Amino acid sequence: MKQFINEKETVVTEAIEGVIAASNGKLTRLDGFPHIKVVLRSEIDRAKVALVSGGGSGHEPAHAGFVGQGMLSAAVCGDVFASPSLEAILAGILAVTGPAGCLLIVKNYTGDRLNFGLAAERARALGLRVNMVIVDDDVALPDLPQQRGLAGTLLVHKIAGAMAEAGEDLDTITEAAKQIIKKTVTIGMSLDTCTLPGAAKEARIGDGQAELGLGIHGEPGVEQIDFVSAKQAMAKVVDKLANAIDSQPLVALINNLGGATALEMAILTRELMHAKIGGQIQYVIGPAAMMTSLDMRGFSVTLFPANDAEIAWLRAAFSPNAWPGCAKIEKGFLLPLPDGLKPVAPKASAHAMHRGFLTKCCEILIAEEDRLNNLDAKSGDGDTGTTLATAARALIAVVDDLPLADISQLYRAIGAELSQTMGGSSGILMAIFFSAAGDASSSGLGIIDALKRGLARVEEVGGARPGDRTFIDALGPALEGLATDMAVAAQAARKGADFTASLGKARAGRATYVPSEKLVGHNDPGAEAVARLFEGLRE
Amino acid sequence: MKQFINEKETVVTEAIEGVIAASNGKLTRLDGFPHIKVVLRSEIDRAKVALVSGGGSGHEPAHAGFVGQGMLSAAVCGDVFASPSLEAILAGILAVTGPAGCLLIVKNYTGDRLNFGLAAERARALGLRVNMVIVDDDVALPDLPQQRGLAGTLLVHKIAGAMAEAGEDLDTITEAAKQIIKKTVTIGMSLDTCTLPGAAKEARIGDGQAELGLGIHGEPGVEQIDFVSAKQAMAKVVDKLANAIDSQPLVALINNLGGATALEMAILTRELMHAKIGGQIQYVIGPAAMMTSLDMRGFSVTLFPANDAEIAWLRAAFSPNAWPGCAKIEKGFLLPLPDGLKPVAPKASAHAMHRGFLTKCCEILIAEEDRLNNLDAKSGDGDTGTTLATAARALIAVVDDLPLADISQLYRAIGAELSQTMGGSSGILMAIFFSAAGDASSSGLGIIDALKRGLARVEEVGGARPGDRTFIDALGPALEGLATDMAVAAQAARKGADFTASLGKARAGRATYVPSEKLVGHNDPGAEAVARLFEGLRE
Repeated sequence: MKQFINEKETVVTEAIEGVIAASNGKLTRLDGFPHIKVVLRSEIDRAKVALVSGGGSGHEPAHAGFVGQGMLSAAVCGDVFASPSLEAILAGILAVTGPAGCLLIVKNYTGDRLNFGLAAERARALGLRVNMVIVDDDVALPDLPQQRGLAGTLLVHKIAGAMAEAGEDLDTITEAAKQIIKKTVTIGMSLDTCTLPGAAKEARIGDGQAELGLGIHGEPGVEQIDFVSAKQAMAKVVDKLANAIDSQPLVALINNLGGATALEMAILTRELMHAKIGGQIQYVIGPAAMMTSLDMRGFSVTLFPANDAEIAWLRAAFSPNAWPGCAKIEKGFLLPLPDGLKPVAPKASAHAMHRGFLTKCCEILIAEEDRLNNLDAKSGDGDTGTTLATAARALIAVVDDLPLADISQLYRAIGAELSQTMGGSSGILMAIFFSAAGDASSSGLGIIDALKRGLARVEEVGGARPGDRTFIDALGPALEGLATDMAVAAQAARKGADFTASLGKARAGRATYVPSEKLVGHNDPGAEAVARLFEGLRE
Repeated sequence: MKQFINEKETVVTEAIEGVIAASNGKLTRLDGFPHIKVVLRSEIDRAKVALVSGGGSGHEPAHAGFVGQGMLSAAVCGDVFASPSLEAILAGILAVTGPAGCLLIVKNYTGDRLNFGLAAERARALGLRVNMVIVDDDVALPDLPQQRGLAGTLLVHKIAGAMAEAGEDLDTITEAAKQIIKKTVTIGMSLDTCTLPGAAKEARIGDGQAELGLGIHGEPGVEQIDFVSAKQAMAKVVDKLANAIDSQPLVALINNLGGATALEMAILTRELMHAKIGGQIQYVIGPAAMMTSLDMRGFSVTLFPANDAEIAWLRAAFSPNAWPGCAKIEKGFLLPLPDGLKPVAPKASAHAMHRGFLTKCCEILIAEEDRLNNLDAKSGDGDTGTTLATAARALIAVVDDLPLADISQLYRAIGAELSQTMGGSSGILMAIFFSAAGDASSSGLGIIDALKRGLARVEEVGGARPGDRTFIDALGPALEGLATDMAVAAQAARKGADFTASLGKARAGRATYVPSEKLVGHNDPGAEAVARLFEGLRE
């Protein structure tokens, strides 16, 4: 099992208890577990129209996450992907409905329509005023007799919720809800299927494929397409929606179907703004997980041509955390970089020997990329070789823009280049090494002493000492050896690097998190890189 | 590729554009792409202390998601899992820092510590007041010289942010941040690894295994454990944390590491409240994705023994959507079910023939479970057999509690039982069928006519007619045939069920979303179930 659950049978009731515990006292539930799973506000004002929604679970935060001030009065939760029972819905209606009546907001699935519809009949027979609206915002199959209800449902929750909070009457709110539903269109896309609690994931969508036009219950999308990029995915989605929308200003709701990362959702949001209808979008809701399909790595876009009143309701106050608010799209403005931080390119100069030496260093590191990665994989994340080779390639690419003839300037320029191209702590330490060496050189020190000064600065800033299992263990001895010649330096670097294999405890860098038994017997990859560099230079 | 990105290289800059677009105009950035990726508030009040955080990307919504009123002034974003450069951090500091000075909030990773530390030095050299705090809340390896910074960082963002907003001075805020850091402990657990942008997922954590004590960069946890349940997982996590906490009232922060569902996170929240330190927890932040590791299916729990002032800052006003607020745990209260909704059990009575017939019906459906599932899998979600068999098992379990001797009461009781145990639309339709048949029977109709009345009500409520490819296509003819005998009924049911294979268009139920080519040639599973039931009864 790859899910944080206890038993399949108790998933929904336990989750409801968790939601209520974290609700700041704002939510409670009816005492009807396990059959009756109704989440409702702790305080109900029955003088206002009650809003009840719900359906199968597995769409969290919908629906319980949207119970609260300015949105729903109660959510009736079924088991995962199964409609709640008529009795549960009736219990929910009776618990929150007063003289102002109740609006049921139902997604267009046969089970939900039946159960909510029959519960409404029963409630009316008991003398309550109950209206019902059916949300059918899906446009995956335009000629389907019954469109599914998808994330567009949230727009109804929010607008009807704000109207109810403001004291509007049942018929006015019902009519407003119907208008929203008429105008709202949604379509979803996914790169993978969802995983039912306690089940394994179905491998339906192949690598490089995406499904377009899917529902929120794991059913297949209406078409599989080749997936190329976020930009192409959004273009496909927008094509489907654009057919259904006339040329009004739009509200876009960007919904995470559950398993897309925040990074991906932000990129998709950018792509929506750059898509062919991007210019028409004036407000955006999300990106956020609102109406999910468990852990599905997908998203949906809902478009809603809203009038001013609807915008105002969408932006009215609310309490549920799960509602991300409705943001106005502002024309972007950028702040200029603070003065003095615009990169100043050093003046290029030629020097054949320095150029040759630097290039050779880079080529040695590039040649060692795979071997250093493999070594690093034994005790770390396996990227030391790539980090160094990437930096080496970047240096080679700019070698003729460097101030090759002036060694102080050259060191500083190498430092600046490495600080931009090398990630992580090794990058910054290399940058410090060369910058400090450059400073020392310009104050009159010879090359070896300047490099030693650079190393001292690295020890000072990085907090690592000889014997801490870092590249210092090879570079220190190598610089000492360099006073004799390159052969002695290489020998010293090799000895220092091999010494690190005996050190079972790293005291600096990422290897400090690695257990001792994974370290002993393997050279530190940074020290090994130094040794190979000097060995290469000796040849 | 299984991710909604364009290119690996542009992931962070494009995501930042998306975040800013959806920020309601509250965020902007420095004009330094691609090297300088700094997100900051559109309006900066330099009379207040500036708060700057950041680090590698891949932890969204951290850190850009926490820029805003009452939290950060700016977030400096590195590439995925790589520290931002000194230049980028310096640019961020210079852009937001005024006379009140600036606090850098840094997670304890070598690269971040170096780059932020050196940037602070440079900023101070330019005359700015800059302090820095290092968050090291991880307790995975208690004797580590340098603990990692994890989700506890958010507590510093929030409290320091509220203090800065309130006009507290730099040294007061710095000291408060240090106190928080000293008291805060975090540990993470995951069921799966994370997926780097553009890469495949590493299969490091086997099925049934979990990693405990992991960081937020994909590095392995300090131990692998057998994963049993959400309850056991939370107990393990709490054990690690309890060692580090004395017996004060606690704030718990429940963080989604990226890939756990909202359902799982709510269950984990419940388990935390029921864990051995659950009684000490007075406030909870989350569950929410705050400091993630891309799409890692894991969570972390942070515990913070807070004093009253710290609680007040945690609950002070804020604008970033990503902050879920700090909820007070209220002693739960349940609302009683509305009157008349407590299930009234019908009075049991004995009737050997009815008992035998009902049991036989149930046994037939149980025996057909797999075959009906397989048929349904060709055009639907493959659960028709299980749905019916589950209901049949439930009926058998309660058969001696049923009013077997009174056919009207019996039908109604079967309807009530099915409405509780059968999920989905078929369940409610069966419930309606039997309830209406019971009502008709009690008004004097004979058995066959009563069942026909039940079917008519199903058609009326469900909106399906003969020829719509539903179980009606078999049940209608079967009930007609029953007027002759069971053999004729079975024959009619079979003919009706086989007829559905010629229908390429479903007009009711979930099959309406299935393309015609997947329907033609397969009997509708509901109709097939009816046919097999009558065929079984004939034998």
